Amino acid sequence: MNRAYLINQIQQKKNYLCIGLDTDITKIPAHLQSHRNAVFEFNKAIINATKDFCVSYKINTAFYEAMGIKGWEALEQTVNYIPATHFKIADAKRGDIGNTSAQYAKAFFEVYGFDAITVAPYMGEDSVRPFLEYENKWTIVLGLTSNKGSEDFQQLTTKSEALGESFLYETVMNKITSWGTPDNLMFVVGATKAEQLQSIRHKFPDHFFLVPGVGFQGGSLEEVSKAALTKDGGILVNASRAIIYASDDENFAEAAAVIAAQYAEEMKEYLLN
Amino acid sequence: MNRAYLINQIQQKKNYLCIGLDTDITKIPAHLQSHRNAVFEFNKAIINATKDFCVSYKINTAFYEAMGIKGWEALEQTVNYIPATHFKIADAKRGDIGNTSAQYAKAFFEVYGFDAITVAPYMGEDSVRPFLEYENKWTIVLGLTSNKGSEDFQQLTTKSEALGESFLYETVMNKITSWGTPDNLMFVVGATKAEQLQSIRHKFPDHFFLVPGVGFQGGSLEEVSKAALTKDGGILVNASRAIIYASDDENFAEAAAVIAAQYAEEMKEYLLN
Repeated sequence: MNRAYLINQIQQKKNYLCIGLDTDITKIPAHLQSHRNAVFEFNKAIINATKDFCVSYKINTAFYEAMGIKGWEALEQTVNYIPATHFKIADAKRGDIGNTSAQYAKAFFEVYGFDAITVAPYMGEDSVRPFLEYENKWTIVLGLTSNKGSEDFQQLTTKSEALGESFLYETVMNKITSWGTPDNLMFVVGATKAEQLQSIRHKFPDHFFLVPGVGFQGGSLEEVSKAALTKDGGILVNASRAIIYASDDENFAEAAAVIAAQYAEEMKEYLLN
Repeated sequence: MNRAYLINQIQQKKNYLCIGLDTDITKIPAHLQSHRNAVFEFNKAIINATKDFCVSYKINTAFYEAMGIKGWEALEQTVNYIPATHFKIADAKRGDIGNTSAQYAKAFFEVYGFDAITVAPYMGEDSVRPFLEYENKWTIVLGLTSNKGSEDFQQLTTKSEALGESFLYETVMNKITSWGTPDNLMFVVGATKAEQLQSIRHKFPDHFFLVPGVGFQGGSLEEVSKAALTKDGGILVNASRAIIYASDDENFAEAAAVIAAQYAEEMKEYLLN
């Protein structure tokens, strides 16, 4: 999916919601547990109920990997089921030496057909480049993440020629923008850091940010939107648990749709103002 | 596998060789290509031929993921086929927020039964802790990697209270040693950095290091061994392509065994001196 199409989807639907399908087999409603393909059945119902209220789905691979091979089958079925209108993100946080990252790129872009993958930056340029080589595919590099652990290293002060003294995440983001363009590169910036998000938007006005951490992790949609929304949208705000586990009984999909619609409605306001 | 058992294996076999099963379906011998389970057949032959010359096998997940679900089947068969005497490493470079890292730990330690997994440190403490919670399992965190891209971020100068000015990889390793112990925590330190390896060993005398980069990537086994070998062994030196692709005809397994035996013989010298 290219940038123009993604922006068009945001403008048409008037939201920038990404729904995280972090489907944990132990957390899905009891009546689905005995289904032989419970995770895909759950995801299918969630997608059917929510697709009008979001522009993107994000599949966190960990939850599928934890189920072994059956999990990968559910992942494959799920990504195939997501409508082509929706931006499909593999939240996989991969990254390795060049020839190995090329294998990960092949897996997620060619084999499973995702539009985007999240990538960890620690190993540097040759670990990121292979993902950037695909046309109309996106590399979403971790910048400043939403978790407590982001303090440990991402917020260390670093010294570099380009920036002088700056936080590691700023140095990382600054360097990585020279490897890709706003047409194939996004960053993960956590919603739990609204103040920093504003400063990051100031420094990187043209890149899309994938913003996790709204909902269960405590980030505020309003603050995030004020800090980082651009005329193109420019952000994809992800909520996972707050939507997909909105209810644990038979009406789980409708309950998820209600929450997704609330997010979408709130986003519409921010987009129009 | 606990530390005492691993050390005992090194002492009995008198080597610290880890063989990387980075099995690329496009690179295995022509006569196996048409086999319906070519990757596992290749791995099985390599394991049979080399198991007396190494103490560990490392499976880089990327090469299996790139084959889709069939790749995960080959991975599962391979890890089940590795003898229980050998230290089984999932070179997966995972890491995510706490509840998600717990899913990765479940996948690699419980579902597939690996002894160890490589983990990327960028997301900090809650991304690493879930792996450390398993008894007799190992977390191998990226310290200083063997690739060119390690210069981009790992070798940035950082400022921290604990160390003052130091390289990012030193700050990372120093902090992470407070989360685990030499009984459940190792570091990846690339063989292409022998000088730095010596200084790292000096700072971290008790931790095992997984050392990739010997062979195809140009690292010297002699330099690595002089820099980092301890009385317990203390290192697992990995070679992948140099061993498994030693020959591309029907004698590939014997050719791999010849190279592995050469590494093992050289290691024996370093261990005894």
